[in-house]
Amino acid sequence: MRPDDANVAGNVHGGTVLKMIEEAGAIISTRHCNSGTGEPCVAALARVERTDFLSPMCIGEVANVSAEITYTSKHSVEVQVNVMSENILTGAKKVTNKATLWYVPLSLKNVNKVVEVPPIQYARKEQEDEGRKRYEEQKLDRLETKQRNGDVIMPVINPEPHTVGYSQSSLIHLVGPSDCTLLGFVHGGVTMKLMDEVAGIVAARHCKTNIVTASVDAINFHEKIKKGSVITISGRMTFTSNKSMEIEVFVDADPFVDEPQERYRAVSAFFTYVSLSKEGKTLPVPQLLVLGSAAPQPASMDRGAP
Amino acid sequence: MRPDDANVAGNVHGGTVLKMIEEAGAIISTRHCNSGTGEPCVAALARVERTDFLSPMCIGEVANVSAEITYTSKHSVEVQVNVMSENILTGAKKVTNKATLWYVPLSLKNVNKVVEVPPIQYARKEQEDEGRKRYEEQKLDRLETKQRNGDVIMPVINPEPHTVGYSQSSLIHLVGPSDCTLLGFVHGGVTMKLMDEVAGIVAARHCKTNIVTASVDAINFHEKIKKGSVITISGRMTFTSNKSMEIEVFVDADPFVDEPQERYRAVSAFFTYVSLSKEGKTLPVPQLLVLGSAAPQPASMDRGAP
Amino acid sequence: MRPDDANVAGNVHGGTVLKMIEEAGAIISTRHCNSGTGEPCVAALARVERTDFLSPMCIGEVANVSAEITYTSKHSVEVQVNVMSENILTGAKKVTNKATLWYVPLSLKNVNKVVEVPPIQYARKEQEDEGRKRYEEQKLDRLETKQRNGDVIMPVINPEPHTVGYSQSSLIHLVGPSDCTLLGFVHGGVTMKLMDEVAGIVAARHCKTNIVTASVDAINFHEKIKKGSVITISGRMTFTSNKSMEIEVFVDADPFVDEPQERYRAVSAFFTYVSLSKEGKTLPVPQLLVLGSAAPQPASMDRGAP
Repeated sequence: MRPDDANVAGNVHGGTVLKMIEEAGAIISTRHCNSGTGEPCVAALARVERTDFLSPMCIGEVANVSAEITYTSKHSVEVQVNVMSENILTGAKKVTNKATLWYVPLSLKNVNKVVEVPPIQYARKEQEDEGRKRYEEQKLDRLETKQRNGDVIMPVINPEPHTVGYSQSSLIHLVGPSDCTLLGFVHGGVTMKLMDEVAGIVAARHCKTNIVTASVDAINFHEKIKKGSVITISGRMTFTSNKSMEIEVFVDADPFVDEPQERYRAVSAFFTYVSLSKEGKTLPVPQLLVLGSAAPQPASMDRGAP
Repeated sequence: MRPDDANVAGNVHGGTVLKMIEEAGAIISTRHCNSGTGEPCVAALARVERTDFLSPMCIGEVANVSAEITYTSKHSVEVQVNVMSENILTGAKKVTNKATLWYVPLSLKNVNKVVEVPPIQYARKEQEDEGRKRYEEQKLDRLETKQRNGDVIMPVINPEPHTVGYSQSSLIHLVGPSDCTLLGFVHGGVTMKLMDEVAGIVAARHCKTNIVTASVDAINFHEKIKKGSVITISGRMTFTSNKSMEIEVFVDADPFVDEPQERYRAVSAFFTYVSLSKEGKTLPVPQLLVLGSAAPQPASMDRGAP
Repeated sequence: MRPDDANVAGNVHGGTVLKMIEEAGAIISTRHCNSGTGEPCVAALARVERTDFLSPMCIGEVANVSAEITYTSKHSVEVQVNVMSENILTGAKKVTNKATLWYVPLSLKNVNKVVEVPPIQYARKEQEDEGRKRYEEQKLDRLETKQRNGDVIMPVINPEPHTVGYSQSSLIHLVGPSDCTLLGFVHGGVTMKLMDEVAGIVAARHCKTNIVTASVDAINFHEKIKKGSVITISGRMTFTSNKSMEIEVFVDADPFVDEPQERYRAVSAFFTYVSLSKEGKTLPVPQLLVLGSAAPQPASMDRGAP
C-alpha cells in the first residue's frame, strides 16, 4: 500500500480494497469460464454482495488477496474473496475484508452474448444447495433494485449545513483504455473505486473529520460501460445513526459520441462510513437535517434489516 | 488531491490543475459539438489563454472544476473553466484558477477533418460580440506564435550557476494509450502537465528552493501528437525579476518509428514561477546571468506588455 | 497487464516486469529480515543479477510472480524471483523471467544503519556453499562497477544517424511519495522501470522499429535516492551485433533543494534490446557508427564474456 492508496490520515481507501477484490475475482472467474470447451469469454462483474470493512489497512502494509469459486449456475459464477493485511515489519496479520462477487461470462466475439459456465465440483451436496439459494436471492434482489433506479440527484442552491444538499457531490470521469477489460468495457473495480471516492467526499463534507468506509451494501451492475464513455458518479447522504452515515451512490453513463444510446443508470449502491478521531476512535456523527417531507428514505427501511 | 499530485512541500503541481481543467474542457466541448445533427467528433485542444494560479491547493483538499461554453465560431469552441479548492474538513473554499480554452472538433472518421460547431444561444447580444473579438485576437496570436517557432534548446557544456545553460532541462516521454483520446492523439492536459514538470525542474535548479507555478502564458497547440510518438519537452529560463522567473517550454514530437514524418514543434509556452520559503513566503530570485549577446529575450519584450 | 503496461505493438515493457519482480523481492526480504528479534528494518535493493526476458508478455495476460529466499549473509539477502505469464483465456503459461536480487536491510530508526539478517535453514549443505560463492562474486563485481562510475553522457551537436550521439536520450523524473518506501527512498523497481524506458527510447531511435528488452545485465544500486530528489536517467548505445543492441544506462540524482549533497551516480546498468518486425520476427540491427577513437567499449569486452 502506497501513499496514493490512502487518505491523509494514512488509512487505505475502501475503494482501493474493492478494486483489488474485483481484480482477483475477475481473474479467477475468467480463468474458470475458459476452462471448458466453450467459446473464449471474459467475466464481467454483475454484483457484489454486502461487505464489511473489518479493520483498516495502512500505508506500508502488504495486502494478501485470495479468491475461490464457491458456486456456478448456468450463466454465472460466485466468487468468495478474502483480504488480509500484513504488517511485514511485525508479522501481524488481520482479516480486513470478505466479499462475495457474481460474474457473468461474455463472449469475446460478441460482447452481448452470455456463454455457458463449466460446472464446479462440490465437496458436499449441501454446498451446492446453499449456493443455489444464494443465487436465487441475489437474482431477486437485482431485479428489485433495477426498478428503483429512476432517481437523480439535483443540485441545491445555498444548502444549509447537515442537509442532504449540503454534502451531495458528484465526479465526472472519462473512461480511458487502462480502465477497461479486453472487451473494451470498464472493470467493475474501477467503478467501485470511484464510487467510494465520491461517498468519502460526501461523508467528509457532512462531518468534517477523518472518515473511513465501514461497509458497502450490495452493488448491482445493471449495464456495461464502454470505453470512451463519460461517467457521472453522484452521492448523497441518505441516513445517519449516532455512529455511522449511509450514502447512496449512482453511476450514470453517457455513451461515446457515435452511439445512439441515451444516458443510462449503470450502477447504484449504498456505502456506510464512520467518523474517526485523530487517535482512530469512533466519533458521533452530526444528524442529517431533514427539510419537509421530501426526505430520502434510509436504505435499510426500503429493504428490511440491513 | 493525493500525495503524488503535489510537491514535497504539499503544494499541488500547477500541471495537475492544468490537466483537470483540460479534462473538463474536453468533455464539455466534445459533448456540445455532438449535440447537433453533424457527424460524430472529438474536441481537440487548440489553445489555452494566459491563466493565473491565484492560490495554492494542498494534499487532501477537493478540487471543484466547473466548465461553461462561452463562445462558438464555425469551427471552434471557447470554454471557460473555474477551479475552486475546498478544504472539506473546515469547509473553506478558494478560487484557485480561471482559464479560457479553445477547442476544435475533429471528425471521428477522419481525424484531419474539422467539423462544424452547433451555435450556442447568448443571453445578451454583447456576449456574442465580445466572444467574436476574443476569437479574432487568439487567432492572430496563434498565427504569430507559429512563426516564431523555429528555436531549439542547444546543450551547454559546463555551464556556470544561474546562467541559462545551468538550469535548462529536458524530459522525454513515450506517449502511451492512457495519454490519448479515442482518436489516438495526446490529451492537451497530459502535455501541459509534462510542460509544467519541466518548467518546475528548471525553476528549482535555478533557485534551489521550493517553487510554485504562478501563471502560464497563452499555450498554442500547433500540431497533434499521435500515440506511440516520443516527445521531448525542453525548458529554459528566459527572464527573472526580483520576485519571479519566466521559463520557456517547447514540446517537440518524433512520430512513431514507422511514420515518414520528421520531428516537429507541437506546443510552446511560457510559465512563470515564484520561489517560496518553508513558511510559504515569497523569496527573492537569483538573477539570470546573461553571457554575451546570445541571451534569449524575455517573452514579455518579444510581445509587448505581458 | 493493461494497455499502459505495454508498447504500441502490445508487448509488455521489460521495465514493468522488473518493477513487479522488485516488489515481490522487497516484500519477501523485508518480511524475512523482521522475522528475528532484531530491530525493525526495510530491505533496500542492492543489486539485480543479469536476467533474460525469455518470452514476451502481452496485454490481457496475468503475471504470476513468485519469490523465494535462497541465501543470507550477515547483512544481505539473496532472493530468487520467477515470473510466469498466463493467458487466462487459453490457460497457456510461459516462464517469462527468472531473476536474482540482493537486498540489504536498513534500520527503520536510522536509515544509514544496516541491521543483521536472521539466517535461513538450507535443505542441503551445498546450497549454503553455492550461495556463499554467489555472494562473494557479486560483492567483487559491485566493487569493480563502482570504480568505473565516473562517466557522464555529454550532449552532441548535430549527430549523424546511427552514431552514439544520435540516439542517446535522457529523462528527468521528480521523485514523488508513491515512488518511495516507508524509509522515504525510491523503490528499486521504480528506478529500473525508468531505466528500461530510457533504454527503449535509445533503441527505438537507433533502429526505428518495434523493439523489446531481451536481457538486463547486472544492475548495481550504489546509493539510495531520497524523496524529493530529481533524477536524470541517461542512456546511450554502446554496442550492436547483427541481432541485438547493448545500451548503457546511468541514473544520477540531484538531492532535494535544501540538502548540501552534490549530484551523485546512483545506479548503472546495461540493457540488451532486439528489433522486431510487425509479425514479431527478429530484424537485423543497423550497425553503430563509431567516429574516431572515443568510441565507448562494449560492456561485454570490459568484463569478459557476457
